[in-house]
Amino acid sequence: MPQLTLTALPGIPLIQPGDDLVALILAGLDAAGIILQDGDVLVVTSKVVSKAEGRFVALDRVTPTPEAREVARFIRKDPRLVTLILAESAEVLRTRPGLIVVQHRLGFISANAGIDASNVQAAGTVLLLPADPDASARALRAGLHAATGADVAVVLNDSHGRAWRHGTVGVAIGVAGLLPLTDRRGEQDLFGKKMRITVLGTADEIAAAASLLQGGTDEALPVVHMRGVPYRSGPGQTVELLRSKERDLFR
Amino acid sequence: MPQLTLTALPGIPLIQPGDDLVALILAGLDAAGIILQDGDVLVVTSKVVSKAEGRFVALDRVTPTPEAREVARFIRKDPRLVTLILAESAEVLRTRPGLIVVQHRLGFISANAGIDASNVQAAGTVLLLPADPDASARALRAGLHAATGADVAVVLNDSHGRAWRHGTVGVAIGVAGLLPLTDRRGEQDLFGKKMRITVLGTADEIAAAASLLQGGTDEALPVVHMRGVPYRSGPGQTVELLRSKERDLFR
Repeated sequence: MPQLTLTALPGIPLIQPGDDLVALILAGLDAAGIILQDGDVLVVTSKVVSKAEGRFVALDRVTPTPEAREVARFIRKDPRLVTLILAESAEVLRTRPGLIVVQHRLGFISANAGIDASNVQAAGTVLLLPADPDASARALRAGLHAATGADVAVVLNDSHGRAWRHGTVGVAIGVAGLLPLTDRRGEQDLFGKKMRITVLGTADEIAAAASLLQGGTDEALPVVHMRGVPYRSGPGQTVELLRSKERDLFR
Repeated sequence: MPQLTLTALPGIPLIQPGDDLVALILAGLDAAGIILQDGDVLVVTSKVVSKAEGRFVALDRVTPTPEAREVARFIRKDPRLVTLILAESAEVLRTRPGLIVVQHRLGFISANAGIDASNVQAAGTVLLLPADPDASARALRAGLHAATGADVAVVLNDSHGRAWRHGTVGVAIGVAGLLPLTDRRGEQDLFGKKMRITVLGTADEIAAAASLLQGGTDEALPVVHMRGVPYRSGPGQTVELLRSKERDLFR
């Protein structure tokens, strides 16, 4: 009977720069009574990875660029924040008052280049995404393997708005140990016909499932353990989830 | 310790027109040893609801319209299928060879107006989405309540492609008994500051989590029971998940 269990690990403290996330996850697993097994998945909010990696920027150290001043006037945001957003972006897709949607330098499309300006302890300080989320995920996976011997997958999730639909959903911005897409092309359905749904956004569904349990609190419940996920292991990269500009009808 | 459990109900047979889904779900719960509780969520693929409701159309009964013939030539699909797609749509957003993306008459944006032409038993027959998925969800919820006394939520899910990202993910196309968006505006985070993420796409995250367990097989595992979902109960409607055209920057 296919079953999937998600557990938000208890007792993860507020993360500070330099904190050892592997040790904190191991303590959380221990507190939850979970012994890590091959095939388990750990979902960690990108926010706490950013904090552990010290990705803070003090706004009073940022000198706004002329381009950022102009955009900031239109979207009514702090020009120093906009300077950082543009520095983190490959391309600006849409702006309107209160909103800027960009292609992040990592390739995905999101508001504010994923920069968190609202939920940071020190006033005047913002938090960038991890410099290389796939590398961060790989480091967590390697650390958990070294400590437990278990071969697990790790997904860093963030909450993104979407075209067409209201409400944020969890998406994967870093992966390790799994193929982010499950390609079922060529497989057959119950009737021996071609599968209707052929390429599944597995890592994004993992990210969304964990986000459901986190309930929008990316620091209160930053780590979710999942058991029973039907994923394919392998050296996946987040970029596999991203459509090239040329193949995207909605930019 | 926040925990979420998903169980794909065993023993659900291939659905035929007229089948009593409530009775089949109750039998599946029984086979899984699950006693329904208030607050549980049942996710049912829209596909089996369509089949139970007899939403089949034989293509040889469809006379292609001139508009459909023209579109069909460009996108290289059967003009009879395109006639049905256009009849189920409010607006065509994008076409290219092999692909047509529309706003469905129900409001959401999807390829092929959700018409399933690949995974249907009888050759030459396609399957439309349920006529009123929210009503279908409400009927399932009422039937489960009548049989068990439990106050549950019901979500009908389908797999949709997305702008910007590869891979399909489960989304809600019908809801009953829950607010599809969780609005946390005005609430405070751990530091007493405004929440960064304020409106959560809860019904879509529920749909994605169930889809993860279903693995793209919307008939082999058509019903997923979920316990522990942090949702808000109420008389929600799917349309709450849909951006109006005027508020959508990506059409």
